[in-house]
Amino acid sequence: MSSSDIFLGEIIGTAVLILLGGGVCAAVTFKTSKAHQAGWVAIAFGWGFAVMTAVYMTSHLSGAHLNPAVTVAIAITDDLSAADLFTYIAGQMIGAILGATLVWLAYYGQFHAHLTDRETVGGPGTQDTRTATGPGPVLGIFSTAPEIRHTWQNLTTEIIGTTVLILAVLTQGLNDEGKGLGPIGALITALVVVSIGFSLGGPTGYAINPARDLGPRIAHSLLPMPNKGGSDWSYSWIPVVGPLVGAVLGGGIYNAVFA
Amino acid sequence: MSSSDIFLGEIIGTAVLILLGGGVCAAVTFKTSKAHQAGWVAIAFGWGFAVMTAVYMTSHLSGAHLNPAVTVAIAITDDLSAADLFTYIAGQMIGAILGATLVWLAYYGQFHAHLTDRETVGGPGTQDTRTATGPGPVLGIFSTAPEIRHTWQNLTTEIIGTTVLILAVLTQGLNDEGKGLGPIGALITALVVVSIGFSLGGPTGYAINPARDLGPRIAHSLLPMPNKGGSDWSYSWIPVVGPLVGAVLGGGIYNAVFA
Amino acid sequence: MSSSDIFLGEIIGTAVLILLGGGVCAAVTFKTSKAHQAGWVAIAFGWGFAVMTAVYMTSHLSGAHLNPAVTVAIAITDDLSAADLFTYIAGQMIGAILGATLVWLAYYGQFHAHLTDRETVGGPGTQDTRTATGPGPVLGIFSTAPEIRHTWQNLTTEIIGTTVLILAVLTQGLNDEGKGLGPIGALITALVVVSIGFSLGGPTGYAINPARDLGPRIAHSLLPMPNKGGSDWSYSWIPVVGPLVGAVLGGGIYNAVFA
Amino acid sequence: MSSSDIFLGEIIGTAVLILLGGGVCAAVTFKTSKAHQAGWVAIAFGWGFAVMTAVYMTSHLSGAHLNPAVTVAIAITDDLSAADLFTYIAGQMIGAILGATLVWLAYYGQFHAHLTDRETVGGPGTQDTRTATGPGPVLGIFSTAPEIRHTWQNLTTEIIGTTVLILAVLTQGLNDEGKGLGPIGALITALVVVSIGFSLGGPTGYAINPARDLGPRIAHSLLPMPNKGGSDWSYSWIPVVGPLVGAVLGGGIYNAVFA
Repeated sequence: MSSSDIFLGEIIGTAVLILLGGGVCAAVTFKTSKAHQAGWVAIAFGWGFAVMTAVYMTSHLSGAHLNPAVTVAIAITDDLSAADLFTYIAGQMIGAILGATLVWLAYYGQFHAHLTDRETVGGPGTQDTRTATGPGPVLGIFSTAPEIRHTWQNLTTEIIGTTVLILAVLTQGLNDEGKGLGPIGALITALVVVSIGFSLGGPTGYAINPARDLGPRIAHSLLPMPNKGGSDWSYSWIPVVGPLVGAVLGGGIYNAVFA
Repeated sequence: MSSSDIFLGEIIGTAVLILLGGGVCAAVTFKTSKAHQAGWVAIAFGWGFAVMTAVYMTSHLSGAHLNPAVTVAIAITDDLSAADLFTYIAGQMIGAILGATLVWLAYYGQFHAHLTDRETVGGPGTQDTRTATGPGPVLGIFSTAPEIRHTWQNLTTEIIGTTVLILAVLTQGLNDEGKGLGPIGALITALVVVSIGFSLGGPTGYAINPARDLGPRIAHSLLPMPNKGGSDWSYSWIPVVGPLVGAVLGGGIYNAVFA
Repeated sequence: MSSSDIFLGEIIGTAVLILLGGGVCAAVTFKTSKAHQAGWVAIAFGWGFAVMTAVYMTSHLSGAHLNPAVTVAIAITDDLSAADLFTYIAGQMIGAILGATLVWLAYYGQFHAHLTDRETVGGPGTQDTRTATGPGPVLGIFSTAPEIRHTWQNLTTEIIGTTVLILAVLTQGLNDEGKGLGPIGALITALVVVSIGFSLGGPTGYAINPARDLGPRIAHSLLPMPNKGGSDWSYSWIPVVGPLVGAVLGGGIYNAVFA
Repeated sequence: MSSSDIFLGEIIGTAVLILLGGGVCAAVTFKTSKAHQAGWVAIAFGWGFAVMTAVYMTSHLSGAHLNPAVTVAIAITDDLSAADLFTYIAGQMIGAILGATLVWLAYYGQFHAHLTDRETVGGPGTQDTRTATGPGPVLGIFSTAPEIRHTWQNLTTEIIGTTVLILAVLTQGLNDEGKGLGPIGALITALVVVSIGFSLGGPTGYAINPARDLGPRIAHSLLPMPNKGGSDWSYSWIPVVGPLVGAVLGGGIYNAVFA
């Protein structure tokens, strides 16, 4: 694969991944969406099929890593030049920011209605017009946040989830004989992500991908939205470091046991 | 493929697509349906598997475009004569009107019960017998409508959703080597549509197919239903123009990057 | 295929189909089930994966028709001796009765608790101890019943649903080149049934298979259950005749257009 | 396959199976989880995709039995030395205990919050601070429990469910020609488990795997959790004996009919 194919493939693939993944979060969050309150079943399948669509679309271009943790794990277990590693991750970050911006465009009316929806908290007739639905859910459309904020617990959950993802991705080569991800491979990868969403997404929202969390967080901080609130930078390193540790752990287990 | 195979294949395929797609909308909408209030998870999977069934059934006959946006994108990226383009789109429009009529037949009792269901809005003992469940949901079984009515926002959402669909359909040729959509291809396409439904269907109901929206809207205006209300023609051009713009955009990106 | 393979394969396959299909109805119906009120999403997927499991298990033995409508459609479109047609349908009916009996065994405690659950309808302190949860839902675990009882409407819905099923099953041969249903074929068939469930199951509960409805209805009438109520024989011919008409219609369309 | 590959493969595969399977139970149970109350649809798909991920990951290492019932059924229907049988089951038990421990680690904060969540049962102002959410659900994250406790009924349900699983697993060899489970085989097996979950999981929670129930129960008894309650050892033999009887029954039917 040429550098430009890698770069373009990862930009397009990660943009589609985040557009569809962030999209389902928007779809479930906003009151003015037809999927409002469709719940975690929608979230888990929505993110999984987002992965399938993006992987399927770009696997012949760049190999469809779409995740710095996958790129790092492949660097550990296979040949990957430092230049390619940089190209992959740069493409992923640009794609993630682009994808989050596309979510904002596709749900522009919903963002506007949500952020300017000031309900009378004190009841009819009072002057208390604080935003009842607040800025919190808007960040949740971009990036993950834990249910219980605790550094080591949150890191542990992200490490465990990413290790499962990495082992599933790396062992795929054993089935598909290095031919790259075909349609079945894209589908299996999607359902592994659905599985991780259902099973390990509860505590932290399963970033399991540094670009998936950091890219949209940057987009959140840059996009012009009134009342959007802060971008929760104090948490932002956990969904970056946790998945990278999971990548090293998964790659190490693969080298020790499967290779 | 002969012209008659294309014409018949697109009629049957699009009729099955709209029968099953409109069917799930009816199933979820009507109080006298076993799937009443099954929600957006049912809608997204229902439309996706409708696509799978229709594509699988007719791919050997016509190639199973079933969508003028797909036909236009293939015309942009591959060889397609103007006569075939016209045959495809004519078959799709006829199939869509036929499919919407089959939904009406399959749910005939439900349409009747719904449209004549006059609840006493003012409470027991009053004379206020306006239809509480109204004609709105009946049009929703045929055609899409936005949650927030705003021309540019609605167009943008339909363009983004269709571009994703078109890119996924066109890159399929890279995996399947031009052999036409086999069973796996039909399944992957289905799950791409499930993904778009979950992730980008919230604001406008994801027409992403001019025939899917315009054909049933024509059926709605023609079918004899008392109290059915208007066919919302003022919105009708958006789910036609948006998907066609998405087809051009997706075809252009494909030509620039993937071809 | 030998007659004994056909006979045994159809008995086992249809028994597994009805065990898993009736099972999900029981799982969703009973208060003492962990899947209580899991809703139509569970029903549609549950029946679909029941088809997949049964087809996958027995396709190498009997070809896995598991449905007299499929057998009739294959007789119309392909070679099938009258003796084999009789063997298929006999196996399907025996398997369906057996499968319904296995549902009753697997949920024996739930049936008992449900049928003897006499709530005080008149409120605390009254003597009104009619069974509030009634015998209706118990028949619903065995056989279908329409939401709106109307002969022509119910027949129409069953005919339309079965025609879609038959066309999907028959066109499968075009993809798989007559090699019998492999794993992918079983999966696609399953998802077609999920699709019909979501989209056309609302009005009548989608029998689309005479054995699926009549066999369990016979089991319902024979199994010893107190307070079980009647077996609704007046409706029983519709889910037999409707699917058979759909089989003839689907087979005819296939012969005219696809063969 | 070497003994060490079998041992390591079964440890890793069963650990991933229980991590993801127990994980979805945790995700749905805990109030401080994003998937709280996602319901039985999440449970059934979550366990199924857990099977898919674990089978896919380890099928080239150990054949991915991941279930003593599968190992026993293969011993009955195929060649398997006593040493290998012991190696498989030992790996499965160690993996199951390890997987349950990983669930506890991934949801550590949730376990803690749940087990120390003492609501005022007697209403505001009273001193009654018994744990309203109790230890019951915590055991439910590890092991199964019946809705209606009745030895023969619970055994029957587990036997029926496991027989279906075993027949589906054994007949897979007829489709895949002994090449081991590829991606499609892993997916089909997953959806068979989803099917059993939807259809036969209602009464007892479908252990259908002695290691899946006993391993996590041992982990529950060993892990340091305040207020965790008992491990319900009086029920523990049923999800061991029932699946083993189902394995023998399924293996016998396979030998009699399919082999």
